[in-house]
Amino acid sequence: MTKIIKIAIIGLGQVGNYLYRELNLKKKNIEIKSGKKIQIVALSAKNKNKKRKYKIDKKIFYTDPIKIIKNIKPDILFEAIGQSDGISKKVVETALRNQIHVITPNKALISKHGDYLSKLAEDNNVNLEFEASVAGGIPILKTIKEGLATNKIKKVYGILNGTTNYILTEMENSNENFDRVLKKAQDLGYAEPGNPKLDLNGFDAFAKVRILSALAFNNQISKHKCIMEGIENIDLKDIKIANQLNLKIKLLGICEMINNRLFETVHPCLVNKDTYIGNVNGVMNAVITEGKPVGESILQGEGAGPGPTSSSLLSDLLSILRGNIKFPFGIASNKRKVVKVFNNNDYSNSLYLRFEVKDKQGVLSSITNRLAKYKISVKRIIQTPVKKRNSATIVIITHKTSEKNARNCLSIFRNNKNILKFPTLIRLYN
Amino acid sequence: MTKIIKIAIIGLGQVGNYLYRELNLKKKNIEIKSGKKIQIVALSAKNKNKKRKYKIDKKIFYTDPIKIIKNIKPDILFEAIGQSDGISKKVVETALRNQIHVITPNKALISKHGDYLSKLAEDNNVNLEFEASVAGGIPILKTIKEGLATNKIKKVYGILNGTTNYILTEMENSNENFDRVLKKAQDLGYAEPGNPKLDLNGFDAFAKVRILSALAFNNQISKHKCIMEGIENIDLKDIKIANQLNLKIKLLGICEMINNRLFETVHPCLVNKDTYIGNVNGVMNAVITEGKPVGESILQGEGAGPGPTSSSLLSDLLSILRGNIKFPFGIASNKRKVVKVFNNNDYSNSLYLRFEVKDKQGVLSSITNRLAKYKISVKRIIQTPVKKRNSATIVIITHKTSEKNARNCLSIFRNNKNILKFPTLIRLYN
Repeated sequence: MTKIIKIAIIGLGQVGNYLYRELNLKKKNIEIKSGKKIQIVALSAKNKNKKRKYKIDKKIFYTDPIKIIKNIKPDILFEAIGQSDGISKKVVETALRNQIHVITPNKALISKHGDYLSKLAEDNNVNLEFEASVAGGIPILKTIKEGLATNKIKKVYGILNGTTNYILTEMENSNENFDRVLKKAQDLGYAEPGNPKLDLNGFDAFAKVRILSALAFNNQISKHKCIMEGIENIDLKDIKIANQLNLKIKLLGICEMINNRLFETVHPCLVNKDTYIGNVNGVMNAVITEGKPVGESILQGEGAGPGPTSSSLLSDLLSILRGNIKFPFGIASNKRKVVKVFNNNDYSNSLYLRFEVKDKQGVLSSITNRLAKYKISVKRIIQTPVKKRNSATIVIITHKTSEKNARNCLSIFRNNKNILKFPTLIRLYN
Repeated sequence: MTKIIKIAIIGLGQVGNYLYRELNLKKKNIEIKSGKKIQIVALSAKNKNKKRKYKIDKKIFYTDPIKIIKNIKPDILFEAIGQSDGISKKVVETALRNQIHVITPNKALISKHGDYLSKLAEDNNVNLEFEASVAGGIPILKTIKEGLATNKIKKVYGILNGTTNYILTEMENSNENFDRVLKKAQDLGYAEPGNPKLDLNGFDAFAKVRILSALAFNNQISKHKCIMEGIENIDLKDIKIANQLNLKIKLLGICEMINNRLFETVHPCLVNKDTYIGNVNGVMNAVITEGKPVGESILQGEGAGPGPTSSSLLSDLLSILRGNIKFPFGIASNKRKVVKVFNNNDYSNSLYLRFEVKDKQGVLSSITNRLAKYKISVKRIIQTPVKKRNSATIVIITHKTSEKNARNCLSIFRNNKNILKFPTLIRLYN
């Protein structure tokens, strides 16, 4: 008789609850594909009696997840709580130490403690799988670790956060401002009702960039400070002006090796409307890799939600059931390099600068003079009067300049009484 | 000391030769990622002394590949000859019987003998891997077998042949006719100089559809007759008219479960310019899967050429070196179903019909009457006079109708002296 593989699910929110149902529904399918029988033997969450979409079996509910590990001894544990530390970390490390395979969609945990936890998994000869932590249902981690394994990857970038992509798309389509569209996103369940900040400020996408870059470049997860900007300051006005310029605003996560130094960032980008990435709309995610010899590869799919997340969680499960014991980051921990980082100051882009100014003579020249002083050359200027307020909007598209230079150049505009607010800066992506 | 894994390459054309170089270049990388040392111990091809881009080590060259299997006993063999039968089949089956893992990009072989060969691999407890047989560098087979493993896939479709996609794209861009662009494609190495037929008539894409459908739906490779049309009859005129209608012509490969019956096809499709698939241009390939719960997933990348092909061959190698012994088609041979097939006659689409007619009264009504008789309703008609020849082009876009009905309806136009040639039919894809 085949041994039955015992499974525990810790955390029964949207994801954990959906996963519970999927595992029950797909038992037979999993058995056919892996040759192994599975059984859910334990569940744990904060609240046993909370109303859940899919009813759980309360006979296997335990309040303390650590006791599940020690007493029930499952073979495989799903961690779906989602904290970067605290109980999530404790559950995962205790499970690994007890030689229990762990599967998690927890990007906060992996991007922060992935090096430590993967070493722990290796030392205990079990798997730590986290496909669902990046880009939901898109199997991008497996693609990098396996499908493109021997390529020299030099860049990975894309739209890694469905919430912000939905908001930017919807602002453009509905002509409504950020706050209204955010409300809509919350009503639709695309943005967290309580605290949507981690999606909006780029943090969520950034955690994914850290994981992708560690995998793509075979290095330890970097800890250095990066340029991380979200979409909170994107105004409907910017979206409209971008539209006139045949551009779209997208929040991109980027990791790249530049002269053998690692560069990672998340910030809004202006991309051409006709490009592939300019046409990834709504809650869709897309990841683009550039590697040799394979060239450019694109993966697109639904980036969030319990369905796509479960798809990735179950693919991890199948991988473990099939006996594919692998290094969590593709290669052994001791082979993963510590890379040097690229100096953020040297990051160069064409810039979109929007100034709101008093409609007075000399204001435009004071701006262009300042740019000239910093050798930032202008590609395009559009000045539009805002009649009611006796002010004007000046949009300048510059040629390429470095972060440092741009920062120094723009600093002066903080204290210019003719410039009504500090200029909006959005980088162009080419 | 680690055992050295012995590798043989059979076939040293573009792909085999490039692979030879990649294996030598990436030895160290492969060792880091798999923990195994590899060594190329044998090569074989028709002609030992042919001039090749990358010099081979003639000391390990053998004329007879079967002797390599019997005498040198490699651990892993790459078959890169590319025939559907003959020596390719003999090499692969002999290797498998001798418990040698086989990796091949040979879609003709796998789509024809994949069931038999995968059973043979299973019986001998070795791997048969063929990631490179479909969509070059795109790891679509691994994605279906692993990344999306537990999804219920209902449809897989896409642009599976780079040659034809290049030709269609280039006809549109350069405004040149089929023959000229084919010549260009041959000069650039995108189409075979001798016999490009298998790309052009849809056969190559169709072999890939057969493999994809077997994997996606867990069935045996189907053998039934399908609608297979290539691009040989696509006229520059059709491309121009499509353009006016905001459409593009793409050769799509499609497999789909319709009412629990398998439908497979390859034919040119008119797709909207604004769709994702309408914007996959040049030699790019793209595969779209629709599954539950993951939703729609898109994979795009370079579909041909030695670089992308090697990327997939090496990913298969790594998979074997890492010890991932797997069923070639994801599940055990005896679990793969024989599915019922969908009746091609019932396949329904909106149609683009182009008639070249004598510019005489009554011709248009003879066409529309005939359509009406078969209850094919017309969505749009565009008639353009061709002044010089006293003739006219009539383009009709119909509402949905079945293959059978369309065929019966159109048959009469073969013998109508006012209709100068049998109408061109292109299906619209929605």
